[in-house]
Parts: sequence; C-alpha cells; structure tokens
Amino acid sequence: MSEPTPLLVVGSVAIDSIKTPFGERERSLGGSATHFSVSASFFTEVGVVAVIGEDFTDEDEAVFHERRINTSNLQRIPGGKTFRWAGEYGFDLNTAHTLDTQLNVFADFNPNLSDTARKSPFLFLGNIQPTLQREVREQVDARFVAMDTMNLWIDTTRDELLKTIAVVDAIVINDAEARQLAEEPNLIRAARKILTWGPKLLVVKRGEYGAALFTKESYFATPAFPLESVFDPTGAGDSFAGGFMGYLAQADKIDETTLRRAIIYGSVMASYNVEEFSCDRLRKLQAEEIRARFHQFKEFTHFEI
Amino acid sequence: MSEPTPLLVVGSVAIDSIKTPFGERERSLGGSATHFSVSASFFTEVGVVAVIGEDFTDEDEAVFHERRINTSNLQRIPGGKTFRWAGEYGFDLNTAHTLDTQLNVFADFNPNLSDTARKSPFLFLGNIQPTLQREVREQVDARFVAMDTMNLWIDTTRDELLKTIAVVDAIVINDAEARQLAEEPNLIRAARKILTWGPKLLVVKRGEYGAALFTKESYFATPAFPLESVFDPTGAGDSFAGGFMGYLAQADKIDETTLRRAIIYGSVMASYNVEEFSCDRLRKLQAEEIRARFHQFKEFTHFEI
Repeated sequence: MSEPTPLLVVGSVAIDSIKTPFGERERSLGGSATHFSVSASFFTEVGVVAVIGEDFTDEDEAVFHERRINTSNLQRIPGGKTFRWAGEYGFDLNTAHTLDTQLNVFADFNPNLSDTARKSPFLFLGNIQPTLQREVREQVDARFVAMDTMNLWIDTTRDELLKTIAVVDAIVINDAEARQLAEEPNLIRAARKILTWGPKLLVVKRGEYGAALFTKESYFATPAFPLESVFDPTGAGDSFAGGFMGYLAQADKIDETTLRRAIIYGSVMASYNVEEFSCDRLRKLQAEEIRARFHQFKEFTHFEI
Repeated sequence: MSEPTPLLVVGSVAIDSIKTPFGERERSLGGSATHFSVSASFFTEVGVVAVIGEDFTDEDEAVFHERRINTSNLQRIPGGKTFRWAGEYGFDLNTAHTLDTQLNVFADFNPNLSDTARKSPFLFLGNIQPTLQREVREQVDARFVAMDTMNLWIDTTRDELLKTIAVVDAIVINDAEARQLAEEPNLIRAARKILTWGPKLLVVKRGEYGAALFTKESYFATPAFPLESVFDPTGAGDSFAGGFMGYLAQADKIDETTLRRAIIYGSVMASYNVEEFSCDRLRKLQAEEIRARFHQFKEFTHFEI
C-alpha cells in the first residue's frame, strides 16, 4: 500500500470561461481543487479528491501530472461532462460576475476515498456544498482540517455549513464572507464570533488588501503583494489556501510562527496566480521566485521600533 | 520675536453635526486642521492656520489650548459663522454621506501668515481648495510640505490641484482618491503615475485596511490596528496625517526608517481618534497608550523569515 499524501484537498475541478478587461479565454482549466493543488504542490505532495467528465482532456490532466499531484482520487465519469463556470470581471477586478454555472458531474458527486487518502494528515475542504465537505471530513483521519466556503452556502445552507464549521480546525474565507457568516459588519468582532463555533483559526483573505489570521489569543495581518498588473483573479483565494496549507503540511506543525509564515506563503502564491489566466503562471513558477517574494514581503512590511 | 512652531497646518476648523449607527452629536468640534493638530500635538508643537466665526466658543478653543496648540494664526471673524458640516455614516462606516456643508467664514478665507509662521520647517496643507493650499505653501519657507485633497477638488478643480501637487513633497490621500486622481484603477500604477508629477512621497490611507507609502524606489505597507468598535470615523484621515507629520517634525528628518515609523504613528493616532466622537478620545489620550499601540503594530505584523 502506498503512503498517504501529506495533504489532501476536496473541491471542484472545472472548465472555466473567463473574461477580464485584459482578455478572455473560452476554455480555462479551473476549479478550487485545481488552483489549490497546483499551488500547494510547490510545498508538499498533494492529493486531489474531485470528479471530472469525459470532456476533460489529457492536456488538462497533464497540469496535475507535471506538478506530481496525486490524482488517484480524481474520479472520471464515463459519458459525464466536467463542471463548468463562466465569469466576468470589471476593471476593479475585485468581484467576479458569474455568467453561467453547470454542475454537470458535480451534481452527483459522492466521494468515497481510498484507504490511503483517508490517512492524509492535512485536509482542505475546498468551496463545495457543506454537507459534502463534512462527508469528506468524516472519512479522513486528519490532524489538521481547514475549509473554505462562499456566500451561496451561507445564504442557502447555513445550518449545514455551521455543522461543518464545528468539525474543522480552520476556516479560510474572504472578508465579505466572514462578515456575512457572522452577521456582523465589524471584521474583528465577526472573527471573535466565528471562533466560538469550533475552529481554532480563522484566516481572512482581503484580496488586494492582504490577509489576516485570527486565533482566540492572537492576531496577525499582512498587506498584499503590490501588483502592478492583475490579469485574472480567478483562483486567487484557492492558490492562497494552497500555499497556506502546503507550507503547514511541509513544516508539519501548527504553531504561531509557522502559521504566520504560511499566511505569507499563501499571499505569495496568490500574487503569482493572478498574473496570468488559469494556472499558467504557477505552471512555470520556480521555487526561487517564491523565496524572492517571501523576502520582499518581509522588506515592505518591516519597520524599526 | 517668538520661535516658529516645528509644524504648521492649514485647513478647516469646523462645527460638525454627526450621526453614526451608534449615536449622534448635534455640535461636534471638527475640521481637518482640528483633528490634524490635536493628533500632531502629541509629537511636537503645532500651529494652526484657519478661520472661525463668533459662534466658536471658549470651550471649543480650549481643546487647542489644552494641547498647547499655537492659535496665533487662527483668525476669528467678527459677526462670522464657523464652517459647518453635517454627515452620516451607515453600518460599514467606510463612507460619510454629507448631509449639509456651509462654508460660512471659509468662503472668504484668505490666509496671511505671520512672519513667524512662515518659518515653520514642516507644513501640512489640509483638505481645502487647492489654490488656497498653494497660496499658503508659497508663504511658508518649509523644508517638507505634505498635502491632502478630496474627490470634490479632483472633480472640480483638477488643473489647480495639479499645480499644487507640483509644489509639495508628499501627498497623503485615501485609496479611492489616489485611483481617481491618477485615473487608474490599479493602486500601484496610480501611485507610480502620481509620483511623476512632483512629489517624492505618496501616502495612501486605506481605512480599515491600513496604509501604504510609495516612493519612486520603495514601498511600505501596514494593515490597520484591529478595532472591535469604531464609533465615529470623522477625522480618521486627518488624525493619521497629524501623527505622520507630527512624528516627522519631532524626528526632524525624512529617511525611510523615519517615514515607516511615521506611517505607524499615523495609524495609531487614527485608531484612537475613531473610538469616540470628535477629538474626545485624543483629548484624554496618554503618551503611554501611543507607545503601547505602536508596539502592538510590530507584534501583529511581524513574521520570521
């Protein structure tokens, strides 16, 4: 029997159609599990739990293989069609306007993980229906579990979502989602409230404004990397989560020092991800470039007492 | 002849009427020069250039005296009425909705500075009509001049504004103003563009997201102090500028290390200012509290390489 990957992610693998002020792409490999795993693969071996259709090409799958991502729990449905998302961004690039969503093979996704996958010590529940997230969570005997979610689930499946939140160690969501989830406009109070529901950690992604980490005892915040050109924001949050979880799995410990570094690595990966369509930038990224931006974060946030 | 104050500010001294989700105050001492000078007074001696009417009470003026602010260039117009502003904030507290503005004595404000005031080495041009800012700038033989502005002047007096920008060392504006001024949605590119117009420094205030400092060669950014309750955001930007300029004037030098510290001190002062109406919080602030938050900034932004 093979060794479990240090990190496992469940989420969507999608074929996106994306329009930004700078260009458009009809067929763009996307999905939360895709962006997450490509990003995390720079730090550790990662396994993907997801479902695809027959329209998923060898070229699409090659993206996973070239990053040595474990696809043994990537299920292909004969005759099925891969999850599709079409979206558009305006000039501010902060909000995606969904033009079309087709669940396709995702509508009946019922993951049954391999015995090996069930032993992964780090698990990330990408943004999918919260009941499905919980089913996966219950199958995996992980040491550290983090989850994402979105406004759709907060609106439509709040009770299920709260049950899932109660069984994870960390939540990684964006600013607006945190406020909406807590029903509290002040982010600091929203965070305090969410941390009474079970998780020990809350990571808040703030797009161009950076990210913050809340625990019951501590607070950490960083601005974002200053980018002169953001080409396609799709997957920024997932590549952030991939860098965050990938670094934690590589370090194999959860303490304040490691968590803070993980937030910076997440920010670095997101900053590269948005520079081109899909995973194009990360596919050619070098380890040296990650180190360089990590050090730049130190440089542009440092001040002397 | 007396010594010039190390720091001079020109701007509005106002009587505000403010409504927030947490309360309202019919008569609240406000104005850019007020918030700026009260904040800066914790770092250095500051002189105010502004105009008031007969309705300005001894109680109002006591706020300046108790902070040892030099009011010898605060002109009182017999029979005049002080500048009035009425505004309201919604739950997000990010945007002030102006309900009423009465220029009153400000309509004919034509500052003629004392010989002493003209020798102040540090000068801040608060948010007033840009031609007026330039007239003051030309009277003062300052070593370092910074300015604020607002969307109104960007919209209505752009040419005059650009002339003023050309004769200052630093601009201290908010995020949306920087984008609007540069006609560029990407903040980093907006900053690069503005820095080709004359100023050596651009400070961008981002409200609850912190602040950033741009020069042609360097970049610095900090998140904001995490506040669980923001009571009244009025004057946050001016108290930020007061802390920033006050610290520079106290340090009496402009290098990267000093500028970065000044950004943090500005953030600290803004964080206290918004905790109560008007200058109420700063009036009872202790030097020890400023030091404490300055150190907290270091703590919550620090990460190890």
